[in-house]
Amino acid sequence: MYIIGGTTSEKVAKDLCKELQVSLVKMISKRFPDDELYIRILDDISKEHVVIIQTTYPDQKIIELFLLQEAVREAGAKKITVVIPYFGYARQDKKFKDGEPVSAKTMAKLISLNADKVITVDPHKEYILDFFTIPAFSCSAVPEIAKYLNKKKNIDMVLAPDKGALERAKQASTIIGCDFDYMEKTRIDGTTVKIKPKNLNVRNKNVAIIDDIISTGGTMAKSIKELKKHGAKRVLVACTHGLFAGEAIKKLKSAGCDEIISTDTIRSDFSKVKIAPCISKLI
Amino acid sequence: MYIIGGTTSEKVAKDLCKELQVSLVKMISKRFPDDELYIRILDDISKEHVVIIQTTYPDQKIIELFLLQEAVREAGAKKITVVIPYFGYARQDKKFKDGEPVSAKTMAKLISLNADKVITVDPHKEYILDFFTIPAFSCSAVPEIAKYLNKKKNIDMVLAPDKGALERAKQASTIIGCDFDYMEKTRIDGTTVKIKPKNLNVRNKNVAIIDDIISTGGTMAKSIKELKKHGAKRVLVACTHGLFAGEAIKKLKSAGCDEIISTDTIRSDFSKVKIAPCISKLI
Repeated sequence: MYIIGGTTSEKVAKDLCKELQVSLVKMISKRFPDDELYIRILDDISKEHVVIIQTTYPDQKIIELFLLQEAVREAGAKKITVVIPYFGYARQDKKFKDGEPVSAKTMAKLISLNADKVITVDPHKEYILDFFTIPAFSCSAVPEIAKYLNKKKNIDMVLAPDKGALERAKQASTIIGCDFDYMEKTRIDGTTVKIKPKNLNVRNKNVAIIDDIISTGGTMAKSIKELKKHGAKRVLVACTHGLFAGEAIKKLKSAGCDEIISTDTIRSDFSKVKIAPCISKLI
Repeated sequence: MYIIGGTTSEKVAKDLCKELQVSLVKMISKRFPDDELYIRILDDISKEHVVIIQTTYPDQKIIELFLLQEAVREAGAKKITVVIPYFGYARQDKKFKDGEPVSAKTMAKLISLNADKVITVDPHKEYILDFFTIPAFSCSAVPEIAKYLNKKKNIDMVLAPDKGALERAKQASTIIGCDFDYMEKTRIDGTTVKIKPKNLNVRNKNVAIIDDIISTGGTMAKSIKELKKHGAKRVLVACTHGLFAGEAIKKLKSAGCDEIISTDTIRSDFSKVKIAPCISKLI
């Protein structure tokens, strides 16, 4: 088995090589003067099982994955497994309005064209795995995030940002051995919305909010503010996929967030949790 | 029949609507805060033949095409024709070295997934049409470029930048009614290369060099310099696809180029020739 890391996932690929005791494939990924991508695989991978790791975000990295897949296929690989740490376009998982594409399905179909198996991490909705036309699997980063929180942070309770995400908070709380709850929105009048934990009291507690994706951080920032208002001692936010679009970090910090934690499915200054151990079990 | 213009090709789509007397589909193409693309088709196109126009350059515009194709398919179109004025990655049309992908083939296969017919303009090599797994056709912009040159420029001869491109120069010269030739490279010693027209004398002549693509403009700039050195009165350069990467325009101008002409397969300040009339014949 050989592992190739696309330019979004070089570190994850290296971690995975260590986990699985296999070799990293040498390759070139550079841009022509007109900004088109040039890909070249430098090792002999013919008749091998090749694992390509690439987060499909932003758009240019999707194109890189397609070219990597083609190069690996052309080089005579026996089997191609594509690992997508963060699967871009996953949130457009249905037609919300007439005339829209199901973008997650588009990407899944295109990626399936030159692969034999797909692995992704914490997809926003589990059913998007069915969009692939090849066997597709997902793993959860929650255990690794929980282990990180457990080791260093003295967490009293884990909160889900909404009821739909409760299962994730419950899973983390079991590992940490603490309480769990979800943030409930209550509409007070036409415009004001109150957000607070459904059952638990956060006064003087160390609280972790756990979610799959943080994008603009808007909702998360509101939750942090409310928790602080209700007397929470420390509020940590943890997510699998830290997109941190636009002013997200600034918003979280000025809301009073004490620590931001993410995995390295998308690399950032907050990638404190390694994703490779979760992925390795599925390869 | 309905026509949809992707964001690279809105003007071409409008021109095509006029040529063919059909309607342009209203659509939304915008970016989410995390820079992912949102597409929505606003008109009812179910059971219709829908023509999508999109240049697949740069990378982000390829993704836009994929999402447009999916949206059109999901909206129940009877037939999808994809028109690609400039087909990105067309120059990686073979494995130049082991371990490379045939990127043109990758793109062709992916585009074929949600389309019934493809039309492109002056592909760098005609055989890339075979990479599509659906019927694929190409048209030439040379007649339209020649008509433009003929009307206003008083051209004495058309030159191909190399022997391989001679056919294009010949075709243009027939329409203009002038001489044609190609630029021949002669290696003088180990390092110096001399470029000049194989047979014709350019002294006091108005010369047009015609090529399919201008990317960085390096070779073209050398040719212009040589022609000027040999006494050419005016040197015009004309191409189908004006990529004009990096400092291309500056290079061409400082080499002494008197006019730069391109079609609108890629929009720029030099898109003086409309491509829609060439395309319309194939739809």
